[in-house]
Amino acid sequence: MASTLDNKARFDRIVARLPVQNLSNTDAIEASLAKTDKTPICLWVTSPTGKPHLGYFVPLLKLADFLEAGVEVRIILLDTYSFLDNVDYPMDQVAHRAKFYQCGMTAALQCLGIDSTGVKFVLESSYQTPEFTKDLWRLCTKVQAQTIRDSWDRAVHPEMVSPLMCPLLQLLSEEYNDADFQFGGEDQASIFALIEKFGPELGHRPRGHLMNPMLPNLTGKKMSATHADKTKIMLLETPENIIAKMEGAAWQTESSKNAFLMTLRDVLIPLSELHARPTAKVLPDWVNPSVDASAPAGTVFTATTDDGLLHFSDFADIGRALSDGRIEPDMLKKSVASAVAKLFTPMQGLFDANPEWQAASAGGYPTV
Amino acid sequence: MASTLDNKARFDRIVARLPVQNLSNTDAIEASLAKTDKTPICLWVTSPTGKPHLGYFVPLLKLADFLEAGVEVRIILLDTYSFLDNVDYPMDQVAHRAKFYQCGMTAALQCLGIDSTGVKFVLESSYQTPEFTKDLWRLCTKVQAQTIRDSWDRAVHPEMVSPLMCPLLQLLSEEYNDADFQFGGEDQASIFALIEKFGPELGHRPRGHLMNPMLPNLTGKKMSATHADKTKIMLLETPENIIAKMEGAAWQTESSKNAFLMTLRDVLIPLSELHARPTAKVLPDWVNPSVDASAPAGTVFTATTDDGLLHFSDFADIGRALSDGRIEPDMLKKSVASAVAKLFTPMQGLFDANPEWQAASAGGYPTV
Repeated sequence: MASTLDNKARFDRIVARLPVQNLSNTDAIEASLAKTDKTPICLWVTSPTGKPHLGYFVPLLKLADFLEAGVEVRIILLDTYSFLDNVDYPMDQVAHRAKFYQCGMTAALQCLGIDSTGVKFVLESSYQTPEFTKDLWRLCTKVQAQTIRDSWDRAVHPEMVSPLMCPLLQLLSEEYNDADFQFGGEDQASIFALIEKFGPELGHRPRGHLMNPMLPNLTGKKMSATHADKTKIMLLETPENIIAKMEGAAWQTESSKNAFLMTLRDVLIPLSELHARPTAKVLPDWVNPSVDASAPAGTVFTATTDDGLLHFSDFADIGRALSDGRIEPDMLKKSVASAVAKLFTPMQGLFDANPEWQAASAGGYPTV
Repeated sequence: MASTLDNKARFDRIVARLPVQNLSNTDAIEASLAKTDKTPICLWVTSPTGKPHLGYFVPLLKLADFLEAGVEVRIILLDTYSFLDNVDYPMDQVAHRAKFYQCGMTAALQCLGIDSTGVKFVLESSYQTPEFTKDLWRLCTKVQAQTIRDSWDRAVHPEMVSPLMCPLLQLLSEEYNDADFQFGGEDQASIFALIEKFGPELGHRPRGHLMNPMLPNLTGKKMSATHADKTKIMLLETPENIIAKMEGAAWQTESSKNAFLMTLRDVLIPLSELHARPTAKVLPDWVNPSVDASAPAGTVFTATTDDGLLHFSDFADIGRALSDGRIEPDMLKKSVASAVAKLFTPMQGLFDANPEWQAASAGGYPTV
């Protein structure tokens, strides 16, 4: 996992495209890069609840930057956390869902063309040693119940004891994976703040925290596994269905709530940029779904208009094209929908070729 | 630990002297007695906080009944529970306190003349296996935080997360010790109710629950390790100090708040009765502190009055003697104080002969 970049370039790669207000404790990241005796470790945690969706492609794409910077990426499958949070599903069903997530994330990385050799999947319950439990007890004596509720209100059953444990487990995940930084969505802000406050109280070293912007769903809200199916693109959606869903979605005027613009900004364009880099580890034979084969060098997105193909070299250029009428929102919607459908095309084949994934699907999401 | 009694007599021995409203799920106890392939197991849990006192002699004395009924008695030293409850003491200090409690309880049993061969001390943290932790998570998904607070409000820092864990840990102690019943003070009533509700929800078999009356302190309130020193008799108190403290205490008119009468009813007289039984396992050379050597057979307490010794054959007789003026409260106070001082006399010698206990005292209760 050694990087060909120098430490300054490695750091820049790690924080690339992340808004500066989404970074904290970056000193800890720089310190980890300076160490010669340990590969830096980044955690990205995911709670196996509903089936994953397009929103996951934003952070997964970012993992490529960490890999390129010579970081060991650990995807933590939060089985215990998920069980404690959702309350309603038995642990064996959660275990199936964790496996579904592992297979789904691996397939999504393949669709993105990312060589995921440096990515490790770790089941949360696997590092809950007696020492971990002792640290959990210590933590429980330091944190007020209300402090946890204030920093994390996503629990399905907040009146239960179990959701109070979730942020604490996430805090300890950093120490028990010897992580140097943790990466997560912007919805992790208050949990990261909690970790930064109470981790040092347990004597843990400070960790960096990085947050990616969250992709809005097709109605302009946060994309979530628990929201209605038509609001988001699911992993195993057919290309036809993706196109129908996306073309049928309304065009939100506020760009941060516009699923098409944000998919361009946070998935399709960074993906084009990633694969244009000489240092990128791209899978062989991978084809960029966003750029037409005829496009000139430097193109990050190709749109189809009534007047033929339109090639863009960056996100700002798309905004200008919308403003000056070179492209209509409807045309852009179609082009984005087409690119996303192409991106997802290999997915079903990967599922069909993977009996473990199929079994996890049946066990984790039984049809009733 | 086989008993010479039949199962009916064993059961009667187990519930002897306990008010009927202090018994629940006794079917589970009877079922355990009927089994030929397993010795019934009783838990008595104790949380190593402040130093133990005379109040502990009430349940410890009752353990003799369980032993006589062929029950394996496990004294659970709640190290984790105590750490989570008190919040303020580090775990290594709690570990010393647990050892202090173990030594203290062993010495108290010796003072009571009880052969404690069948008593096992078990450190709570020793059975917190990964399976235990998984069950704890399951339990956390079933219990509301408020339900725990409603059933247990003794935490020093109720705003913390940690005290919420205590009743849950106590619940699981029964399953992970394969207990058939748990014995505790009347202050355990709502915790026992919580256990009886949620244990079966985890698929655990029902356990019996028995409660002993709590000894009032010298001012008529509940005797507690956290209350002022002068309100109670501590394990390592000198006989002179015991006599001075007790003789200086006020005579409470309400008998349930009268430390002298309740000590007679719940410690001194049951102790006399225990040792009068042919089936009792009394330590060799043990001398009953409550009965004068000159007393006739059947005497359970001897008081010294201005007119000489007065021998009583049961508790009710003492009440009548007070009513009809055969004995003055002050005389009875002196006689009870004298008996308690005699009961405690061997304690300091046991401490002086036990370097482990001395080390636990220094480590668990450092003088600042």
